[in-house]
Amino acid sequence: MVTAEIIAIGSELLAPDRTDTNSLWLTERLNSIGIEVRLKTIVGDDDARLEEAIKDAVKRSKVVITTGGLGPTEDDITRKVTARALGRRLLLDDQLLEQIRQRFQAFGRSMPERNSRQAMVIEGAEVLPNPNGSAPGLYIEHADTAVALLPGPPREMQPMFADHVQSRLAARAGNLRVLRRVLRVAGFGESALDEKIAPIYTQFENPQTTILFNKTEIEIHLTAKGKNEQDAERLLDDLSARLEERLGHAIFSFRGETMEQVVGLKLTVGGFTVGVAESCTGGLIAQRLTDVPGSSRYFIEGVVAYSNDAKINTLGVDPELLRRHGAVSAEVAESMATGIRKRAKTDFGLSVTGIAGPDGGSEEKPVGLVYIALADESHIEHKRLMIPGDRQLIRWRASQAVLDLLRRRLI
Amino acid sequence: MVTAEIIAIGSELLAPDRTDTNSLWLTERLNSIGIEVRLKTIVGDDDARLEEAIKDAVKRSKVVITTGGLGPTEDDITRKVTARALGRRLLLDDQLLEQIRQRFQAFGRSMPERNSRQAMVIEGAEVLPNPNGSAPGLYIEHADTAVALLPGPPREMQPMFADHVQSRLAARAGNLRVLRRVLRVAGFGESALDEKIAPIYTQFENPQTTILFNKTEIEIHLTAKGKNEQDAERLLDDLSARLEERLGHAIFSFRGETMEQVVGLKLTVGGFTVGVAESCTGGLIAQRLTDVPGSSRYFIEGVVAYSNDAKINTLGVDPELLRRHGAVSAEVAESMATGIRKRAKTDFGLSVTGIAGPDGGSEEKPVGLVYIALADESHIEHKRLMIPGDRQLIRWRASQAVLDLLRRRLI
Repeated sequence: MVTAEIIAIGSELLAPDRTDTNSLWLTERLNSIGIEVRLKTIVGDDDARLEEAIKDAVKRSKVVITTGGLGPTEDDITRKVTARALGRRLLLDDQLLEQIRQRFQAFGRSMPERNSRQAMVIEGAEVLPNPNGSAPGLYIEHADTAVALLPGPPREMQPMFADHVQSRLAARAGNLRVLRRVLRVAGFGESALDEKIAPIYTQFENPQTTILFNKTEIEIHLTAKGKNEQDAERLLDDLSARLEERLGHAIFSFRGETMEQVVGLKLTVGGFTVGVAESCTGGLIAQRLTDVPGSSRYFIEGVVAYSNDAKINTLGVDPELLRRHGAVSAEVAESMATGIRKRAKTDFGLSVTGIAGPDGGSEEKPVGLVYIALADESHIEHKRLMIPGDRQLIRWRASQAVLDLLRRRLI
Repeated sequence: MVTAEIIAIGSELLAPDRTDTNSLWLTERLNSIGIEVRLKTIVGDDDARLEEAIKDAVKRSKVVITTGGLGPTEDDITRKVTARALGRRLLLDDQLLEQIRQRFQAFGRSMPERNSRQAMVIEGAEVLPNPNGSAPGLYIEHADTAVALLPGPPREMQPMFADHVQSRLAARAGNLRVLRRVLRVAGFGESALDEKIAPIYTQFENPQTTILFNKTEIEIHLTAKGKNEQDAERLLDDLSARLEERLGHAIFSFRGETMEQVVGLKLTVGGFTVGVAESCTGGLIAQRLTDVPGSSRYFIEGVVAYSNDAKINTLGVDPELLRRHGAVSAEVAESMATGIRKRAKTDFGLSVTGIAGPDGGSEEKPVGLVYIALADESHIEHKRLMIPGDRQLIRWRASQAVLDLLRRRLI
């Protein structure tokens, strides 16, 4: 496989509050054309270190991509240092200078003197136009290594790579293609899932399988290498069919769709409507459902009944029920689900009541205890959950569980 | 300043869905003891590249920290390759082997043979204990460079660094201290804010100021270098006082608190309660308010009135108002705010109605048009906003604006 290195340039990228996200996007693109990223470097505006990084990279790798440091200021050292690292001269490109000048004129401004720096071109390089900013990119074939210097802002870098770099690199990479697929799973912990599917995926060297705990969800990431796209797709299809056979409806998404998108689609297709009554999730379920464009077709109303009064007055929960069983109980969860269904006049009513912590738990009803319920015309059901984790995780997992309850009912 | 490099090791870190977050945490810690991170490398399980990275790093930097690659498998190459890069032997430490064996016994298991690899120690290195996993760390003083090999999982790496590495490095770093402060600002765009405060912060070389658009919020990041902590704190105090003078109440947070935490604290201190009526934000405001532990003291009830029926039936909005002005109007926003206040019997009622897109806009009422309102016993007000951005950003900024309305009312 052709190997690549990515060098992100800029002192701001070395602060504790910044991550280099460009390299993730570039890795996805490079992988898709059969190029493997073997090293990433993040370096400040530091001549000596950058020069060494570029020298090492062109020695080791067939593709070297830098992002950042192409601006007009003193700190923007990528052009100058790359020229030095490659042993090439830096020349003023009059035509490019004129283009940059015109770009400023188009916005009714005259070009600041310092921007003429951006018209300096490494000897032998092609200039990559940047319709989204003032920094042009550069592409150099140095010995048998392709070197691309791209701007730092993603909205400038991404189209430049897609329009001017990707096809050049694809031609060098041959036919190998790497495709990824993300399966999302509900109702499993990380290790329980691994135990269940390891006997299957360990039989496959290609695709490779990784189980990822991505913020709040368990995801199965499959990466296939194929002779071409169809071949890689076929490999992904085979393994995901095997995993589906094993996990059944627990896989709710095969192409990275979110739970709320999956539920929204099923509601739309069936022409159904839904209302939500929440206590401990505090609006998260409504927020997730309405995060999907077009959700007004099926989402009618949500009530965040944090206080008992709200549960009684707005959802019609019997005060006697609250007194006898407490707000966190199966009885109250079911009453909330039927209550919101009646109020919103929807096909489905969903509810959640629980203790998200960190306070409010007791021995009998500890932090993490959550009841969820679903009501429709002919049917009412509830589930008792004990969710580990902190407040945010408990809230999120409770919302996921109740959306999953609806998804399974809609199957 | 003493300079450091961080090397993250592991092929999984080169996938397009993974970022190296360890280095952010380490950077914060290193900065706080006056050590500057000048380069970060992310390298796969690749002997040659890792060896080169370590060799380069110890030549250039006084502190080199690696994370990952200390596990028991063939792929875990950090010990072996670091030894080679430093020209030192790798020796089996019998005492360490016994400790690892006992760790397994404590969990009622016998040590797999491959774990004996974790008892290999680089000549001259100190072993750093790992109470949270099986991989011990190593600390080596090589010429005048400190090299620390730490495990990859954050819950193992962080305590190991804090307990065994930080004080050693602090002693080498001298007294210089770097402190950061994050000011959060409401009601400004990035460039409008910069225009307003650039005349102030450009006068200061120390602290350094960065304006950051962090997902959804505008933040001012201040970084001060001082002879000691007090000195750095004083520098931060001076500049933030100057910025506050200029921006006034637009700064809502001086220590990184979120808007919902700030509002929650003010409600708690004043003994006030709040109810929320949402349309386009779909539960986001309720969700943010209840994200704060203890919010049940002030958050009583929220209604997500997506349909007109819900606005009429649950919030008591006059159907005639809806017919005459439309759901997205100042009149309906105010009626929703008074409606939820009445229903929930709260001191404050907040409301949002708008068009989050991508569909549903018209020439008269385009995507991004949002009305927010606040009602209390003696007062009712609304604001008309035109919010640029996609659905998620419109929803988030609308929620921020209405929480800010309440914050300013509470001042």
